[in-house]
Amino acid sequence: MSSAPAPVPTDAIAVIFSARRRDGDAWNYAAAADEMEQLAATQPGYLGIESARGSDGFGITVSYWADDEAALAWRDHPLHAAIRQRGRAMWYDDYRVTVARVTRGYSWARE
Amino acid sequence: MSSAPAPVPTDAIAVIFSARRRDGDAWNYAAAADEMEQLAATQPGYLGIESARGSDGFGITVSYWADDEAALAWRDHPLHAAIRQRGRAMWYDDYRVTVARVTRGYSWARE
Repeated sequence: MSSAPAPVPTDAIAVIFSARRRDGDAWNYAAAADEMEQLAATQPGYLGIESARGSDGFGITVSYWADDEAALAWRDHPLHAAIRQRGRAMWYDDYRVTVARVTRGYSWARE
Repeated sequence: MSSAPAPVPTDAIAVIFSARRRDGDAWNYAAAADEMEQLAATQPGYLGIESARGSDGFGITVSYWADDEAALAWRDHPLHAAIRQRGRAMWYDDYRVTVARVTRGYSWARE
């Protein structure tokens, strides 16, 4: 048994970041990813974050924001921008960012 | 060097499925996931799918659709509905579905 995750509210902003990792620098990468998740959680309008990465190096992180202003402020946060630059220099082969406005959501958990 | 993934077009629909897997039945699960990815790719309005699952069992799959009609038709596809039922019976502890309309997107690849 588990409790269902909270559905993401309508009109929230989802920022979908999908990326292929390069090999190497794993410790610094993990530390930076952890730091960014913790920093994001302190930002205005933060609703949540979820992340999965497979053994093939492909990963998806989705962050959820109350509105587009909050998503843009996080994009423009100086520490986040600096880490992105490091990601391009060191950690990723390619990535894609998709910003979308939530129209509906639901969740389920085993009884 | 790699080529950048195509940015997801504005007004496309992103369906974000995040789920915690239970242990067991791995072969059947993998076969069904593969079958669903292949079936989705034959549906009208299909734009693409991406998926990542970590060793902790938490995974995120995002499918992209030309419009909401296409996303709803995929939700209601009989084989997809049957597999979802099996997922609730066998494969997941909990999951969340978030449907969102794309407002902007971009991508990057190492030169």
